[in-house]
Amino acid sequence: MEGNQSNIAAASPNGASSVPAGQELAMQTLSYSSQPPAPHTPSAPLQQSRNSIRLLSGILAVNILLLGSALVCGAAFSKVKVLSDEEMHIYLTILLILTTAWMIFYMVHTASRTQAVLYKDSHAGPIWLRGGLVLFGLASLIMDVFKIGFSTGQLNCESPVKVTFPLVQLVFVVVQTYFLWVHSKDCVQKESNITGCGLMLTLATNLMLWMSAVADESLHQTGEESLKPNGSFSHLRDGSMFFKAGGSGCECTHSACGIFEKGFYYLYPFNIEYSLFASAMAYVMWKNIGREIDDCSHHKISFRAKEIVFGVIVGLLVVIAGLGVFIVYEVEVTGDASKKRVLIMYYTFSIIVLILMSLASLAGSIIYRFDKRTLVSTKNPTRSLDVALLLGAALGQFLISYFSIVAIVAEKNTGSISMLNLTCSCLIILQLCLQNVFIIEGLHKQPYHAEPPVVSVVFINEGTSHSNPYSPSLKNDNDEPSPAENSLELSSHSHDFRSTTHSSSSHMSWKRRALKEISMFLLLCNVIFWIIPAFGARPQFDNGLEEWVYGFSMWVAIVNIGLPFGIFYRMHSVASLFEVYLTT
Amino acid sequence: MEGNQSNIAAASPNGASSVPAGQELAMQTLSYSSQPPAPHTPSAPLQQSRNSIRLLSGILAVNILLLGSALVCGAAFSKVKVLSDEEMHIYLTILLILTTAWMIFYMVHTASRTQAVLYKDSHAGPIWLRGGLVLFGLASLIMDVFKIGFSTGQLNCESPVKVTFPLVQLVFVVVQTYFLWVHSKDCVQKESNITGCGLMLTLATNLMLWMSAVADESLHQTGEESLKPNGSFSHLRDGSMFFKAGGSGCECTHSACGIFEKGFYYLYPFNIEYSLFASAMAYVMWKNIGREIDDCSHHKISFRAKEIVFGVIVGLLVVIAGLGVFIVYEVEVTGDASKKRVLIMYYTFSIIVLILMSLASLAGSIIYRFDKRTLVSTKNPTRSLDVALLLGAALGQFLISYFSIVAIVAEKNTGSISMLNLTCSCLIILQLCLQNVFIIEGLHKQPYHAEPPVVSVVFINEGTSHSNPYSPSLKNDNDEPSPAENSLELSSHSHDFRSTTHSSSSHMSWKRRALKEISMFLLLCNVIFWIIPAFGARPQFDNGLEEWVYGFSMWVAIVNIGLPFGIFYRMHSVASLFEVYLTT
Repeated sequence: MEGNQSNIAAASPNGASSVPAGQELAMQTLSYSSQPPAPHTPSAPLQQSRNSIRLLSGILAVNILLLGSALVCGAAFSKVKVLSDEEMHIYLTILLILTTAWMIFYMVHTASRTQAVLYKDSHAGPIWLRGGLVLFGLASLIMDVFKIGFSTGQLNCESPVKVTFPLVQLVFVVVQTYFLWVHSKDCVQKESNITGCGLMLTLATNLMLWMSAVADESLHQTGEESLKPNGSFSHLRDGSMFFKAGGSGCECTHSACGIFEKGFYYLYPFNIEYSLFASAMAYVMWKNIGREIDDCSHHKISFRAKEIVFGVIVGLLVVIAGLGVFIVYEVEVTGDASKKRVLIMYYTFSIIVLILMSLASLAGSIIYRFDKRTLVSTKNPTRSLDVALLLGAALGQFLISYFSIVAIVAEKNTGSISMLNLTCSCLIILQLCLQNVFIIEGLHKQPYHAEPPVVSVVFINEGTSHSNPYSPSLKNDNDEPSPAENSLELSSHSHDFRSTTHSSSSHMSWKRRALKEISMFLLLCNVIFWIIPAFGARPQFDNGLEEWVYGFSMWVAIVNIGLPFGIFYRMHSVASLFEVYLTT
Repeated sequence: MEGNQSNIAAASPNGASSVPAGQELAMQTLSYSSQPPAPHTPSAPLQQSRNSIRLLSGILAVNILLLGSALVCGAAFSKVKVLSDEEMHIYLTILLILTTAWMIFYMVHTASRTQAVLYKDSHAGPIWLRGGLVLFGLASLIMDVFKIGFSTGQLNCESPVKVTFPLVQLVFVVVQTYFLWVHSKDCVQKESNITGCGLMLTLATNLMLWMSAVADESLHQTGEESLKPNGSFSHLRDGSMFFKAGGSGCECTHSACGIFEKGFYYLYPFNIEYSLFASAMAYVMWKNIGREIDDCSHHKISFRAKEIVFGVIVGLLVVIAGLGVFIVYEVEVTGDASKKRVLIMYYTFSIIVLILMSLASLAGSIIYRFDKRTLVSTKNPTRSLDVALLLGAALGQFLISYFSIVAIVAEKNTGSISMLNLTCSCLIILQLCLQNVFIIEGLHKQPYHAEPPVVSVVFINEGTSHSNPYSPSLKNDNDEPSPAENSLELSSHSHDFRSTTHSSSSHMSWKRRALKEISMFLLLCNVIFWIIPAFGARPQFDNGLEEWVYGFSMWVAIVNIGLPFGIFYRMHSVASLFEVYLTT
């Protein structure tokens, strides 16, 4: 036994030191509490098989997407009409059927196998994402019903594919929403090859739906524009005209066609959001294939807003003012006379709120500099993914803002609306950068109530075990009771760690309070900046400047690509800010 | 001392087992030899500071790129000429000056500080990448000289920015080529903030140059096309016409203008490649900031091709045949009568070679299945990056192929050239998928001569140290002498690992030999598929089908984006296949 012990590897991070062995191992243990060695590292063959699954399924998705984008581009932008919508719809229908079939197979067969889903990722598929999915899913269902109604009226002259496609899409939306609601947290261990390809198929199908919806919507808007002799897009909002879809000249046989068509074009943006949400969730599931986690970090911190007054009040004022602006905007923007006034009102409101938000984010980031909390050093793939999605989604808003700025500066237009638009675009960029920094710093901080996890060290020696919890005395602002367990893994297997719970009650430090106020204020502001574009305000078209500089079809494409990401970003930041609020 | 030891954490991956403690720790040690815990994990604050550098510099690059793309899109596609080339060139000039200034600052100040560059990443900036950079850099220099010559002739009517820009770019290319040649392996430890932003600035500048070159080239080709009454692009190759750049109607004052303009449009593709190469290298440097590696895995395996006969001979035959096809193609494709014959020859050659390559890759992948070599389990960021670049670059070729397939199928053209083009496009996709799988599997295998690293375990006990190297007896095909050291780190600090060297000489096993033959054959085939497009063969335009389906300007954009990536992919696979050859 003693001989054995002298051979033991003490892979100490301190290298060759002169510290006695026992002490050195104790130091190593201590260092685990601040930096555990890559907790979720799977074994080598497992990692290898994960890599090969990723490679194969990634290649599959790339092929589906590139073939699809060739079809979309061919159908949308080709001058000679060699490619029609029909090929595109046949391709999409096939994809939808395959994906639906795989999801049913997964739910019936794979997930029900023993040991297929041993672990659940508690960070994946948060409630806001699943809630948003159901909400937008419902809108997509209504859109599909409208589409079916519209297409049945055109059956005499249009191909039957036009009816089949929304029918299949309807089934797909129902199955997929249920599938993602139930299984979005799964870390699949069995049949990972099929699951990997299936999830990549789901991702690719959703992205294809997104792509074709963006192209459809852009063409539709461009078609509307070309029907008008002069002027701007907003005139068509009242729907006084009725456009033939795609200009095919096919007459509808029943009278409800007009309502159906108006309805489904109104619901398009929700369907685009639905595809984005489903893509994000499928991607997270795909990243979780074969992951072995033992994730029990349930934030049991209760939500008590009563101590937070200032942030909530100012935030609520902003939301109420925003709703007022939104309603006035929607009512008045259709008239030529009132449009300029409404736009000035909208931009002024945005500028004021954006300045407040930027200042709040900046103040928050400065407070973090003085914050003594330790950083969460465990590598958390879900958090990294979350941050990546947040940053990626912000690109949409960046895109629109930069195109606006370039257009205004190049046109040298010094009208009041252009100047306000310019200021607003610059402020959006600034605000997004500052808010991203604030959120990411907040997410990386150790929760206020959670002490750095205490490593309960057990030395098993032929049946007898001595337990001796060692609690490092790190400086911390903890002074409130709240048990937050922080699980820490040294390997993929389970370990014996316990967290101590301090029980003492006092008021919050000013830093914590300020951070909580700031995150609550930002949260509410993001809610209103989500509502305004999500429910149809489009100053990007109403001011008419950019569409004149870039040409209508190009500007429509940019807005249709950028805006859904912008909306997704606002929802995502609301969720992230709520997490920052809770952990502060 | 004994009391201390009973407190020690034995974070065994086997959880609560009944194995005696010493034995359990030994088992843990054993598990290190097959699966080290994330070797390059830096300490928590270091990781944190790296993350914040990445965030800040990433935001910077995104802002530069989005502003730039708004300018490029505005200048290139806007119908009303609000934005001109001038704004674009001013923006680029500012970026070039800033980047050049930073690179000089880095070379003079940062790199010369003590402890600024403690580590060098031996995998970064391989010789093929640096060689390619110099080669394409020279072409870019000549292009800039031509541009300066051309612009000086137009000084009377064009803005002075048009002369300043190529002048600044000339200095930039010289400085950057030197900078990347000398510093591409650096893992910077000091002033990481400035360096991170500087490298992201370099990356963004190169991508902007790439973007503007693609837009310029596309506009130029579209401009050429519109000057012709009918027919295809290839007629203009003989340069019998002289086009005004951008159709500005500005007359050149000296006689050499025509030659200069022809020259610099011919050199554009090389400049595009240069930007891609520099971007890739800047990105790798950026990823290496703050990385602490102790990388001494120099492949000392000598290159001996004498045992490899079959692969080399067949490969060389393909190269010679390809050169013949290329020369005939370039000479004959300009004539209308001979064009069809030449295209049939080109496609037939491509199809035969692609089939051979696909079969070889497939055979290689099958042999890997029976290969008993262990997999390299250490996480190697440079290799992951390499694989990502390989897969990313393949997208360019995929893009072109899928657009061709869709065009041919949609047009229902059953002419011999279309059928050959269709077959060729399908085979390209198949070949790329199979070759990627083969290369990636090859790169992940343990080199034939290197045993899995042996963990020399040291238990320091008050000054005395017992060393007991444990060598796992894994089945291996090793039977040739070659010392390949494989360093393995348990933390960022240095550890004591040694690799044993088997010394025995015999002939290669058939599996190794076959793999070597296959990689050599694929390497040579990739060389010829690099040469043909790099030096100007463009069947994508000469067959005229896709340009008719998608419209000329769209097809030009697709080819101009996809082809440079395709060329980069072929060069990259040549390098990767050489590595596979060496390690097999």
